[in-house]
Formats: sequence, structure tokens, C-alpha cells
Amino acid sequence: MRVSDVPKWDIRTDVVVVGFGAAGLCAAIEARTLGVAVEAFEVASSYGGSAALSGGELYLGGGGGTPVQRAAGFEDSTEDLFSYLVAAGGPGADLDRARLYAEQALDHFSWLCEQGVPFKGSYLPGKWLEPLTDDTLTWSGNEEAWPCSELAKPAPRGHAPQMAGWGAGRLLVDSLARRAVSLGTRVHYDSRVTSLIADEHNAVHGIAVRMDGELRCVLARHGVILCAGGFVCNEGMLKQYAPSTALCRTPITAGNDHGAGIRMGISVGAAAIHMEQFFCTMPFYPPESLVKGIFVNERGQRFINEDSYHGRVTQEVLRQPNARAWLLVDNEIFDRPIINPKIVIAAVGDTWAELEQELRLLPGSLVQTVQQFNDFARAGRDPVLHKAAPWLRALSSPPFAALSFCANEYDALFFTLGGLSTLPTGQVLAPDGSVIPGLFAAGRTACGLPRWGDGYASGLSLGDSTFFGRRAGRSAAACSVSGAMPAH
Amino acid sequence: MRVSDVPKWDIRTDVVVVGFGAAGLCAAIEARTLGVAVEAFEVASSYGGSAALSGGELYLGGGGGTPVQRAAGFEDSTEDLFSYLVAAGGPGADLDRARLYAEQALDHFSWLCEQGVPFKGSYLPGKWLEPLTDDTLTWSGNEEAWPCSELAKPAPRGHAPQMAGWGAGRLLVDSLARRAVSLGTRVHYDSRVTSLIADEHNAVHGIAVRMDGELRCVLARHGVILCAGGFVCNEGMLKQYAPSTALCRTPITAGNDHGAGIRMGISVGAAAIHMEQFFCTMPFYPPESLVKGIFVNERGQRFINEDSYHGRVTQEVLRQPNARAWLLVDNEIFDRPIINPKIVIAAVGDTWAELEQELRLLPGSLVQTVQQFNDFARAGRDPVLHKAAPWLRALSSPPFAALSFCANEYDALFFTLGGLSTLPTGQVLAPDGSVIPGLFAAGRTACGLPRWGDGYASGLSLGDSTFFGRRAGRSAAACSVSGAMPAH
Repeated sequence: MRVSDVPKWDIRTDVVVVGFGAAGLCAAIEARTLGVAVEAFEVASSYGGSAALSGGELYLGGGGGTPVQRAAGFEDSTEDLFSYLVAAGGPGADLDRARLYAEQALDHFSWLCEQGVPFKGSYLPGKWLEPLTDDTLTWSGNEEAWPCSELAKPAPRGHAPQMAGWGAGRLLVDSLARRAVSLGTRVHYDSRVTSLIADEHNAVHGIAVRMDGELRCVLARHGVILCAGGFVCNEGMLKQYAPSTALCRTPITAGNDHGAGIRMGISVGAAAIHMEQFFCTMPFYPPESLVKGIFVNERGQRFINEDSYHGRVTQEVLRQPNARAWLLVDNEIFDRPIINPKIVIAAVGDTWAELEQELRLLPGSLVQTVQQFNDFARAGRDPVLHKAAPWLRALSSPPFAALSFCANEYDALFFTLGGLSTLPTGQVLAPDGSVIPGLFAAGRTACGLPRWGDGYASGLSLGDSTFFGRRAGRSAAACSVSGAMPAH
Repeated sequence: MRVSDVPKWDIRTDVVVVGFGAAGLCAAIEARTLGVAVEAFEVASSYGGSAALSGGELYLGGGGGTPVQRAAGFEDSTEDLFSYLVAAGGPGADLDRARLYAEQALDHFSWLCEQGVPFKGSYLPGKWLEPLTDDTLTWSGNEEAWPCSELAKPAPRGHAPQMAGWGAGRLLVDSLARRAVSLGTRVHYDSRVTSLIADEHNAVHGIAVRMDGELRCVLARHGVILCAGGFVCNEGMLKQYAPSTALCRTPITAGNDHGAGIRMGISVGAAAIHMEQFFCTMPFYPPESLVKGIFVNERGQRFINEDSYHGRVTQEVLRQPNARAWLLVDNEIFDRPIINPKIVIAAVGDTWAELEQELRLLPGSLVQTVQQFNDFARAGRDPVLHKAAPWLRALSSPPFAALSFCANEYDALFFTLGGLSTLPTGQVLAPDGSVIPGLFAAGRTACGLPRWGDGYASGLSLGDSTFFGRRAGRSAAACSVSGAMPAH
């Protein structure tokens, strides 16, 4: 929609926030803190977006360590955090974004505390998806796994709000929403933003939004911040942009990740980047005993160090021939993933040859792989895939079992990582690197720190959304859109 | 640029063609055939684009077979061609496009003949990159390799113009250019199109072009067709959209694949899709004796049936740990790839154990793999990777050698496959599937039939560019852009 199509501005404000999840909440807080008027439009009937359903983990560290890291005895340098974030970004890593985040993550932790996010501050050792106790700090990525372990000194960096059980994201968004509203953000729920309103040079001046059955035009004097989530709910976009997600069945979403923010950005010439990338997982730990098992594909080959983050393992599983793989365990470590107690047990036997036969693998292929692994494990090393010593143990206590991680038998969970190209300020970019005036994006509407499925760690998405949501809010507050404004 | 910014229309025409390579030439021919005025703008000093440097192969068949296929004794059904194209399109295959192409590829061959493209009509058996004799028909993809061999009845479908030696693409574009010009296309060389000219609703009405040092505005009453190639020359776009190409060093291009067409499409709200995909190759055949070798990675594992198309093999090579792989051969099949006679011979020895040691692979890993392969090869089968019987032979005549296909030792060639989302008509689409009025795209500016690196076959890009270039030309000729036109 163009400015010239606007019959009248129904609402006039300084900053418009589209989507009131983790990124939008932080953007609103910061913009209000700078004293400008902020109106937020949320398609759902409440705040929080998909972050409200998450574990609430934020990936934080650097600067010597957060108070939580230090209390638990972990030092964490800014350089180590930076190096880790660059590795996590993969071949398309954004160095500027990683640098800024590494330098200011410590401040960000303090800021989150100031907003009232309740961190208990205690450390929970072990391998978890998210803390199920009310502890704060966990190992939440690939820090101790090869090759990351060689690229940066490991430290646990997952920081979760205090809550026993799943879903501490609720506490995170509750705190942020209380703060955003108390600071005077005007929030409109059940409001579907249908398009940006731009001038003829694609500078953005506002939005059109459907509220109470009517289309309203909203003038944003300083800018529009798109925080409308990713596109995991949009089948057409998944097929066009991220067709490999067809192997995953369960979107991670509160239901409104329809890609509207990304599409609105594209409508005014923004670049959407790394759109093929996604996080996915078929969680296999906890219990962490299963990390001592080994994954094999239908050729009987191993393919990943199993102490890697569950999302990284799953990316590799989905790449194996026919997206089929099994986790081999022996009696001593046998268990069922707590997230999937009904996991298919594809084969059980007293010898590995029996399992090999039951799985219909090539004679000798699995037996050979297990034997090689066991021989090396007894010597305390894994020269093939570099699994770390604490997880190395010969699989030699029958009976043996193969847990199925075949994509057709274990519903992988997933969400999208591609989005609008932005500067660390949140300003949205065209493919030639020019800034689209008046337009900002954060959260999964933008392509942020997490932009490579293989490098994902729990807390990266919320860390990025909250951190760069804040920056987008500040940038928009400080911005004034160039170009003549309409008189009506 | 907006229509309202146009000081005056320096040129008025019906159809504007941006880029005069394979797609643009075909678009111009068809639009002229329908009687509308056509002006083509080419940044280089001559026609042909990257197609002029190519082998000139076109992927054609179906309908019982082209005259060339039939003369050589090959039947080729439309369904088999369709099934093959769908497999080649990978997880994001465009069924409508594949269907249309399969049904009309035979007609397209006749049309190319009518344009004066010289096909000798003879069949050259064996495994080639392109015919180095002046023959026409070769096996140019994965037709006989698993899994394609099980998905569609194989037929050779690569059709090249008559020319001995490399580079028959020259003949293809010469014929098409003669025809386009004789039909009255007005061609402007050394002309850089800098932007589209759109109205406030992003309907496209023309282009701005730098010619003779001045910026001219060109009105296109019926539409603009973007045929400006891919983005393999644009480092910034490669990094943002296709970062995995960093493993490849040698772009396949005539030098102008700067992504300008894709960027112009994005500037008016078009979706750019499958942007991460690319063709790449480290050719290992001819000579075809090398197809009887086996590829292993640094874990000593095989990972691909070596009778696959060289581009498919290369995609897998680049995915191996550290992008390292070697082709293992014995004395009987030893040779050097004709395209790379200086290939690094990483190890030579009288036993596989010697090679394993020289390559510093894990003791036993390579020996075991070769032994398993040899045992099965002697029995005439490859149950691990399904290499077809004609290429199975035990590697047992010392000395043995390992040819390096490590990405840091063999410069992979590559070009991009992602581009603007289009209908089979060439109409450019926004992410929500709506048509952008007045805008068309073809060739590598569009995301066409070849949209998955693993499924590429020689001739798919030129087949797609010429076929859908024609359709874009016809669609634009028949189109009239909606919306009021400026009076000046």
C-alpha cells in the first residue's frame, strides 16, 4: 500500500511494532524508554508469540562471564563467545552482529534482570534440552563438542528464568510485557497488520491493520519494526524457500509464524536471506546416558559425534540416505528419550549381528562400525568423529537395542531461521546493501545470529530476538523517515 | 525508480528485454514473432551472455523421443522425462514447470532447428562432459545412475549443436541472435539497465538504462523481461544467499552474472527462491575409466555411486568432512581427468594399506572400504551405493593411486541456480503468489527447472533458459500493463 492510497491516518504514532513477542516487547520497551510514542499490533489475543511457549533460554556470556556463570565457576571471555557465535553462524555468519552481541551480552543479562526476568542464578550440570528444575544455567549448545570445543573455550551459556518444568518462556514474556505496558506502550490485540504503507521510493511511513473488522491506517513517524515471527506455519513459503523442512512434521510455534513480516519486508524491496535454513530436532537426550550411544545410518556408518547438540545431530540425521538413522545402545545405557518415551525400538538382540540383520543392514556393516567404535572407546578416543572422552564407552553389555530416528518414525520439530537482511541496528536492507528508510526488523522476521541449522544452540533465538529487538526499538526511536509526509 | 520520477521517455517500445543471452534471445524472437516492438539491452558488447561460453547442450526428449533420440534407437516418453525432471528438481521441484516442459520439449527441439541451430543428429555413447566430437546426443545427467534409474526409464537427452571441441554454445547463440535481429529486434549493446520503472503499486512500466554515458528512460508498454543471468559474479550476494559456494573458486560465467536482474525483481517485491542452490563440478570424467574408481572421504567411507553425474558427485564431495575426498583407482583404470590433467595425485602405493597411510586415514578404514567394494564388485553388485553393474570392477591391479578432489586442491567450477519466482509463463511472483504486473523473468535470473544442485544435468539450464525465455517473450507480447500511464 502506498501513502497516496491512504484515505486518512486513523492512528498517528512514532513507532509501530508489528508483533508483540520477545523481539517486539523489547523493541517497545527501548523505544518507550527513549520517550517516543509506541503502538504495538499483535494478531493474537495476548502477547508473547512463540517465545511464550519456549523454554525461555537466552544464550549469554562473555566479558568474564555473567554473574551466574561466575558463581558457578565459569569464566567466559568476550572473544570466546564471539568465536563461538561465528562458528554457530556457519558459512554465512554475520561478523558484525556476532561482535556486537559478544561485547554486550553481559549488559543484556543485566538489562533483562532489570526488566524483572527472574533468574534463580544456579547451575545445572549435564545434558538437557532446557532445565526442568528451576535452575538458570545449563550447557545448551555445542560448546564442548568437536569442532566447537577447538574453536572457543567452552562455557555453559544457556540462561533460563526460574521455573520448574517446561516452558519458562512464559515468565520471560510476562516480565517483558509488564514492563512494556507500564512504560506506556499502547497495545492492540486481535489486530492483523495487512501491509506496510510506503511512499513511492519504498520509504516506510506506516501500516494498514485490520482491527475490529475494519482496515485502519497507522502513521509511524519514526518507523515500523517488524517482529512478526518466522514462516514455519506457511506451507507455501516453506515449500518455496525451505523445501528440506518437508522431512519435519511438527512446527515449533504459537501458531502465527505465517511469514507476514518477511513478506511485508519483501514487498518494499528487502532482501530475505538464508531462507533455506531451519532449526530442527528429534531430541535424544535427556537422559544423558543416551549420549553414550552411537548413531548409524542405513549403510551402517557413523556420521556425527553424538555429544553434539541435539539440533546439530538431527540436521545430520535428516541428511543421511533416506533420512534414516538409529541410535545404538547397550543394556547399561538403555533408556527412552524423555521427550519421546514412545520412540520406536527398531531392533533388539543379544549380538550386534542380530541387530544388523533385524535392521536389514548390509552384513558386516554395523558390526564393523560398532567394533571399531568399541576398540577406540576402550582406548578413550574417537579418532573418527571426535566424540569427547566423557561420553566414550564400549557398547558391550547385551542386550543391545536400536532406537529409531528415521524421519518417518520420529516427528522432528522445527522452526525457520531465514528472514529479512538487517544491520545490527535492525534497519532492513535491500539486496544491494542499501537501507530501506523507516523499516526495522527483529526476531525470526529477521535473519539474525542463528542462521545456520547446524550451528543452532538453545537460547540463540531468544538471545538474538531480545537483544536485537532492543536495538531495533532504539534505532527506530532515533530515526525520522525522510521524504514528504501527506497532509491529511 | 517510479514512473513519477521519469523526466521523459527517451525510448518507447512494447517489450523490453534485459540481457541478450540464451533466454533473452528466445524471448525477443517470440515477442517479435507476435508482432510487437522489442528492444533488447545488453551490458556486454555482444549477445550470448554466459550461454555463449557453454557447451550448448539442451536437455530435450519426451513424446517418444526427439528425431535424434529415435535415430539412435532411444524411445523417450513424456512421462519418463517428466519423472526425471521432478527428481532433478529435488525437494522444491516445480511440477507445473516440469509438466509443461516435458510435454513440449519435442516441439522445442523442432523450433530450435527452425531457428537455424545446427544439430548434426548423431549419438555419442559414453560418459562425457559435453561432446568433444561434432556429435549431438549424449548422456548428460543421472539418467542411468541410482536412484534416477529407478524413477524414470533412462534415455540420453543432452542435445548439442554440431561442433568439434569445447564450446558449442557459441553456435547456439549465433543462430538465435541472427534470427532475433532478422525479425527486427532493436538491440542496444554496452547498455547497463540500472533499475526498473514501476508505478506506485509496483506494476512495471519500463527501465532506466545507462547508454553512451547517459541515463535513458525506456517505456515498455507490454512488459519488461529480465534475462540478466544469475549472481555468480556478485560476492556480496553469494555470501548472503549462497554461502556454501565459498568452497568453489571458479565461477562459470561470461563475466556479467552480477545478479542485477534478481535485484531489480526484488526491488518491486518479487520473491527470490532457492537462492542457496548452485551447480558445481570438479569433473572427474572423461575418461570414463575413472568412473570405475571409488570416492572416499577422510573417514575412509564411500559416499556416492560414482556413476552419478559429475555435478552430483561434486555436491557430495563438498559435503564431506572438511570438503575432502579422493578418487581411488588402480593401474588398469588410472588416468587423469581431461579437464584437469594436473590433478593432485595425493598418494600412490602397491597396497591399499600404503595409500591409507599416505593419506593419513585411520588405520583399516580405507582398506576395509576397498575390500568390501571389491568383494561386491566381483559379484557384480554394489548394495551399499547402488553403482550400476557396467562400472563395477574390483580395484586390484597395483599400483594404486588416490586423485585429490579436496576442495582446497581442485578448483570447483560453479554457477547459481536460485532466482526470481515465476510462473511457467515467465510472470514474476511476489511471496504470496500474486503476479507483479508487467514483469517477466527467464534464464538464471529466474529459478527454473534446475533448482537443486544435486539434481543438475548438463543441458538443463540452457533447455530451461531457451524454453521459458520463449514463453516469457510470448506472455509479455500478449500482456498489457494495467494502471494509468503517464502522459509525457
